[in-house]
Amino acid sequence: MANKKCGNYTICFENPPVITGWASVVGKKEGQGPLKDTFDRIFTDSTLGERTWEKAESRLQKESMQLAISKSGISPQNISYVFGGDLLNQCIGSTFSLRHSDIPFFGLYGACSTMAEGLILASMTVDGGFSDCSAAITSSHFCAAEKQYRVPLEYGGQRTPNSQWTVTASGAIILQNAGTGPKITHATVGRIEDLGITDVNNMGAAMAPAAFSTLKAFFDDTATKPGDYDLIVTGDLGLLGRKIVVDFFKKDGIDIGQNYDDCGIMIFSGEQDVNAGGSGCGCSAAVLCGYILNSISQGLMKKVIFSGTGALLSPVSVCQGESVPGICHLVCVTA
Amino acid sequence: MANKKCGNYTICFENPPVITGWASVVGKKEGQGPLKDTFDRIFTDSTLGERTWEKAESRLQKESMQLAISKSGISPQNISYVFGGDLLNQCIGSTFSLRHSDIPFFGLYGACSTMAEGLILASMTVDGGFSDCSAAITSSHFCAAEKQYRVPLEYGGQRTPNSQWTVTASGAIILQNAGTGPKITHATVGRIEDLGITDVNNMGAAMAPAAFSTLKAFFDDTATKPGDYDLIVTGDLGLLGRKIVVDFFKKDGIDIGQNYDDCGIMIFSGEQDVNAGGSGCGCSAAVLCGYILNSISQGLMKKVIFSGTGALLSPVSVCQGESVPGICHLVCVTA
Repeated sequence: MANKKCGNYTICFENPPVITGWASVVGKKEGQGPLKDTFDRIFTDSTLGERTWEKAESRLQKESMQLAISKSGISPQNISYVFGGDLLNQCIGSTFSLRHSDIPFFGLYGACSTMAEGLILASMTVDGGFSDCSAAITSSHFCAAEKQYRVPLEYGGQRTPNSQWTVTASGAIILQNAGTGPKITHATVGRIEDLGITDVNNMGAAMAPAAFSTLKAFFDDTATKPGDYDLIVTGDLGLLGRKIVVDFFKKDGIDIGQNYDDCGIMIFSGEQDVNAGGSGCGCSAAVLCGYILNSISQGLMKKVIFSGTGALLSPVSVCQGESVPGICHLVCVTA
Repeated sequence: MANKKCGNYTICFENPPVITGWASVVGKKEGQGPLKDTFDRIFTDSTLGERTWEKAESRLQKESMQLAISKSGISPQNISYVFGGDLLNQCIGSTFSLRHSDIPFFGLYGACSTMAEGLILASMTVDGGFSDCSAAITSSHFCAAEKQYRVPLEYGGQRTPNSQWTVTASGAIILQNAGTGPKITHATVGRIEDLGITDVNNMGAAMAPAAFSTLKAFFDDTATKPGDYDLIVTGDLGLLGRKIVVDFFKKDGIDIGQNYDDCGIMIFSGEQDVNAGGSGCGCSAAVLCGYILNSISQGLMKKVIFSGTGALLSPVSVCQGESVPGICHLVCVTA
């Protein structure tokens, strides 16, 4: 095994990349939730002045990237690579937001795990000596996602109790090989897990096995336990998926419940009528680039595990009767 | 700038990763083309015995990965990461092919540049000390692509003279930090270029500016010229896109025409009725994992530039009147 690996699945960065800039922008509903004060900008008009939902989502990315760049103090031409992706077919949220940026671009598809996936790869480029500065970005938009994955809003489709609400948000992060800010010390790369869940309205259950597998690999590889961290988050399993992860750990004799939360649960309150919670690439990205990184930089938290969970299905695979594969990528962020 | 960079956009690997295994599998039409003897396996039944085109595409990936692994002699559990993606919405060709592999997975979306993108990232993990062995895989399937991007085959849609034919194929590559085989010495990461082409049947023209930009960056950064290489390929610009790249270089006073070819042109003969040539993630992947790597390992070529070109559009962006952004990622492969 290579020298920067600890255990089977975890990377231990030699020179942990520094998060020198981060920003989150969200829509109106997210701006009414419990984390409203942690976001950089709240757009009360969900079109953001654009003609289509897809363009509105691209605009979210442009805004978060601009803010993250300005907060880090770096100039865009010093960013070696940007890692980006989103839920829209062919990831047009990202490619159209970055098409005039002139920054070398790696396109990702990791569903809701995209921010974690991008952070791992961006960290590798920095710690591996390929870049002094790299960036990661992602987004989701409720209206664009409903149109593509379910039914256009105008149809007024009903939602099942297990369903999650796609968050309208974008998060962007600037990583550098030096500077001040939270650091990425470890990363665990996920394997695809598929336990045969076929209910697309129960994504939390489909992704929970992947979350458990990656979290367990991380604890095993680093010889640490949940209590060693101020906060462990998944993003986004929702209420049901979180419960499954807690149960899985309980079977192993581990109580993860105490300091374990889920970005999809954190971003909305129980009164916001979102059933099992939030979801979408933008959900965990906005919680990380708002509440979590703000708390770390304010000294309120020291060690956080951020695990992005993605459901790797498509509307076509569902119609073909396939189950929903899940994946979970993890980064450990410390003060 | 970091120490492994040469120039602005090019990486010079310190310990060039070795391609210890590679394999290409193709469909019937590709198996009738001029490169037929270079592929590992030709499936004359384009369903591969599966019930849907999407499952057939996944199957192509399973076959190419299995062959590449067995040719490299490594065991699957020694592969630290696999980088995969394809053209199907949410990249289900890759996620469903790998869901039971238990190999840590990074999902990519780079359209037809996916193999080059995956190779760059896999090379970084090996040269950066994060992995002793990584893999890259991609695929495309004519029938799945027509259904998703254009019209189902049963409609008998007409094709414009500029259009390209999505190749049914998959290519897989195993990279290691030691061993025998062709090496990846350099990589140039692409920037998104968009010169305003809105004709989706002329993807070659849409991607040509990105190909020119990345190739020019590579020649500038490495202080080399086209004549220094045995072969320069793009994949896949087709006849029209190739001509535009030649013209762009001519304006710079450089004659690239002599040893420059395009995977989309190479894979089919003029008699195969494919208009401007082949396309799809599987096209450049199969040409690389067939003709090119075979030729290098047989001592027929020493230095090859492989530049994957992707059109970063979606059917939705086209309907919204958007132009087609392109990207080109490049790796330099030497004996």
